[in-house]
Amino acid sequence: MTPEGRARYRQLAEQIKAAIDTGTLQPGARLPSVRTLAAQYGVSQTTALNALRALENQRYAEARPKSGFFVRANPAAPRDQAKVIAPLDEQTELHLAMVGSECRVRLDLANGASTLYPLEKMAVLLRKAGQAKPAVLGSTVKGTGYPPLKAEISRRAVSYGCHLDPDDLLITNGCIEALSLALRATLSAGDAVAVESPCYFVLLHMLQSLGLRVVEVPAGAAGHIDVDRLVALFETRAVNAFVTLANINNPLGKSIPNAAKATIAQAADAHGIILIEDDIFGDTAFGEQRPFPLLAFTASALLCSGFSKTLAPGLRIGWVYSRQHSRRLMMLKYTSSMGTSVPPQMAIAEMLRSGGYDAHLRRLRATLASQVRQMREAVLRHFPAGTRVSEPEGGYVLWVEMPHGALNVRELFIKARARGIGIAPGHIFATDGRYDHCFRLNAGFGWDQEVERAIGQLAAWCGESLAIDNPPLSANRMLSLGKPATPL
Amino acid sequence: MTPEGRARYRQLAEQIKAAIDTGTLQPGARLPSVRTLAAQYGVSQTTALNALRALENQRYAEARPKSGFFVRANPAAPRDQAKVIAPLDEQTELHLAMVGSECRVRLDLANGASTLYPLEKMAVLLRKAGQAKPAVLGSTVKGTGYPPLKAEISRRAVSYGCHLDPDDLLITNGCIEALSLALRATLSAGDAVAVESPCYFVLLHMLQSLGLRVVEVPAGAAGHIDVDRLVALFETRAVNAFVTLANINNPLGKSIPNAAKATIAQAADAHGIILIEDDIFGDTAFGEQRPFPLLAFTASALLCSGFSKTLAPGLRIGWVYSRQHSRRLMMLKYTSSMGTSVPPQMAIAEMLRSGGYDAHLRRLRATLASQVRQMREAVLRHFPAGTRVSEPEGGYVLWVEMPHGALNVRELFIKARARGIGIAPGHIFATDGRYDHCFRLNAGFGWDQEVERAIGQLAAWCGESLAIDNPPLSANRMLSLGKPATPL
Repeated sequence: MTPEGRARYRQLAEQIKAAIDTGTLQPGARLPSVRTLAAQYGVSQTTALNALRALENQRYAEARPKSGFFVRANPAAPRDQAKVIAPLDEQTELHLAMVGSECRVRLDLANGASTLYPLEKMAVLLRKAGQAKPAVLGSTVKGTGYPPLKAEISRRAVSYGCHLDPDDLLITNGCIEALSLALRATLSAGDAVAVESPCYFVLLHMLQSLGLRVVEVPAGAAGHIDVDRLVALFETRAVNAFVTLANINNPLGKSIPNAAKATIAQAADAHGIILIEDDIFGDTAFGEQRPFPLLAFTASALLCSGFSKTLAPGLRIGWVYSRQHSRRLMMLKYTSSMGTSVPPQMAIAEMLRSGGYDAHLRRLRATLASQVRQMREAVLRHFPAGTRVSEPEGGYVLWVEMPHGALNVRELFIKARARGIGIAPGHIFATDGRYDHCFRLNAGFGWDQEVERAIGQLAAWCGESLAIDNPPLSANRMLSLGKPATPL
Repeated sequence: MTPEGRARYRQLAEQIKAAIDTGTLQPGARLPSVRTLAAQYGVSQTTALNALRALENQRYAEARPKSGFFVRANPAAPRDQAKVIAPLDEQTELHLAMVGSECRVRLDLANGASTLYPLEKMAVLLRKAGQAKPAVLGSTVKGTGYPPLKAEISRRAVSYGCHLDPDDLLITNGCIEALSLALRATLSAGDAVAVESPCYFVLLHMLQSLGLRVVEVPAGAAGHIDVDRLVALFETRAVNAFVTLANINNPLGKSIPNAAKATIAQAADAHGIILIEDDIFGDTAFGEQRPFPLLAFTASALLCSGFSKTLAPGLRIGWVYSRQHSRRLMMLKYTSSMGTSVPPQMAIAEMLRSGGYDAHLRRLRATLASQVRQMREAVLRHFPAGTRVSEPEGGYVLWVEMPHGALNVRELFIKARARGIGIAPGHIFATDGRYDHCFRLNAGFGWDQEVERAIGQLAAWCGESLAIDNPPLSANRMLSLGKPATPL
């Protein structure tokens, strides 16, 4: 098969998978015949057949003798769907490059301009911490965190439905360390973990580095995980754990509604599934009520969070809470990095105690909401018909989806970087190629003419790509991907 | 068997093992008969036989029909000597307690009074870092470390024989994170690791938490690892790696001589054994020449170090270097804690650049040497005949060894804590009971009447223990453990 032929059948398979994932094609539905597919998509019959076979191999479809191909009843159920994640070498290079160097227009990470944060105030508090207890720079770091910080975190947690015993709370070097410790405390290499898809790429790398297998459960039409499919995984014990950004997921920016969280919590407890939540974006939710973590629905959930997205990204202070696993978490922390530097904890504790954090959060949320809205409108303005863009409920980022097969995002990433524009390419949000037509944009640096021009430039490249490199597939019509500018 | 009988035969076995480990009993030597042992040690013949059987099980001795028991030719060689470390629950409780609370007299950790460190200067440099680049508190931490700090570390390394390419150098949250990443980058669960015995207890916990097996290779008469036995382990591929505090080991305070390091490096390269060095105490060596790390003898060694024992323990800044494994180390760091906070790196970089670090190190080394000498002399003065004490070449700590069986160090630890005196009990430095008669003292807080009284009190308890709880074993004479106050 030629490389073009291979690319073509994969494109076609991905399009049909997307239709299954979003419910456009229901379980049990008959798929178009080879002949019909070939005609509809303007491809050879060989390509159409290869696409159907690929769907069969991936357990999305099943062949019935003399009847053709059908959507499987429960594509996620089989235990062996959990994937060993291959070493993500290319992606590694890519995102080490992404974090290691600066673009002029920083649309790549989920971060913000330093003006978003109360840095003058934090600097003063750090200085005061040093003056009040100068010996703290010279003291061996002991224990599991600065007690007044643990007390403040516990106090705040009540407002989002969680009662944290400070004795079971552990301060970490950022939320990433919290998440890594939570995984190591509860799982072993070879265990299977369900994640939202698209999935925060650092989490995929983390699972890979720990030898964990993954089941990527697609987001439904509402932009959060398909709860029915997730619960089916729990019931069949196809996974050992669910690791989730239940609040303001990354990259879609959506939260799981409370009722669905209660369903997930109950099912997890019933089947002994471990719940690990990364709540780093919870405090950035734009709405009136800060969303509740899963821990508010079951005491068995592990909760990870921190201050790197809200207060002082440069201080790297996070935390993890678990009533059941706290001793093991503390032991692993002790042998992974001993302790967490105290002066930043003192400064953050004082910021929380004084009420300064809440006042700051109100401003931060309003600013982020406005910046995200501006960027979203610009995408709708500039991008060609067929583009879809997420409608985030919080956080920094937007997810942009071109029609299936209409974009090679690796190429876009490289082309954009050469012009000083950083984006997060879609393929790093999955273990397979399912988001090769997507990318994530960061609204954290606000709006100016340079950003507007960058969005315009990206849109122009995507338009060219749509028009020239990939003649429009007729299936765009069939699978209703052709409407411009609708929420995902 | 009664608990007393069990304790008795274990004591006896440990004593004979120590004689084998130190070379007092050579491979091939015939061990005393059951009857002779029983008479010499004042124990029953059953106890004597049990001790010999235990030595046989542990592959220290072999039984020859009609001839009795003999010292095995190469006790360390068999692959299965590598132990799976049992979860160290009791020890965990113990040392979480140790690091989590304060004693009045702090002889427990390897740390010092805050007056040992240039904290005023560091506080000023931290403030300047914040003023020069205020945005640093608000910036996402990117990359593998603050480049000027990496450059300074590389520059200094030349003076101890190492040429570090800054691109392969990774800044970490303290040396513990460096060590943990080095182990994870190069080894898998089930692999076997050789360590010095007695062994830094956090390293044992770390190996346990990573599912690594351990072979504890005893220190010889010179206070550093028995190189012949280590090389035999390499040759038989009984281990995958050697993890070492080759410079100023902990707790004995000795460095492996250069010639022996060269031998180790050569043997490791010849047999594909991974070398991981924790050089955290290297800069505290009392002598004229700062000792060389193994990396000076082979480019394949991984080198871990940091500034928590020399400059600012509260900042938790360390580093790891490997030419061969740097990409994997960086990836694991990225998924374990993302990055390391930048302001402390800026302050330390400036301290190194300005020459302030070298000036400070000269004072620190002189102070530590004097404090260690004072404490050593006090131990020699106060402790009963039969006590041995290490003669450190650097660092903070001393190792005290009572005659075998003459001390229950767990009881001493508890009794001392009740009086506000912290010590590091010997049993946490091994996976078995081989150091139940030993403990580690910290000289980092200097000398005053309170410390003198604490040493006197510890000595009195040890004397009572020697006189009352455990009537002197005649074997103390046989195995030449009876000389007071000699270097280990």
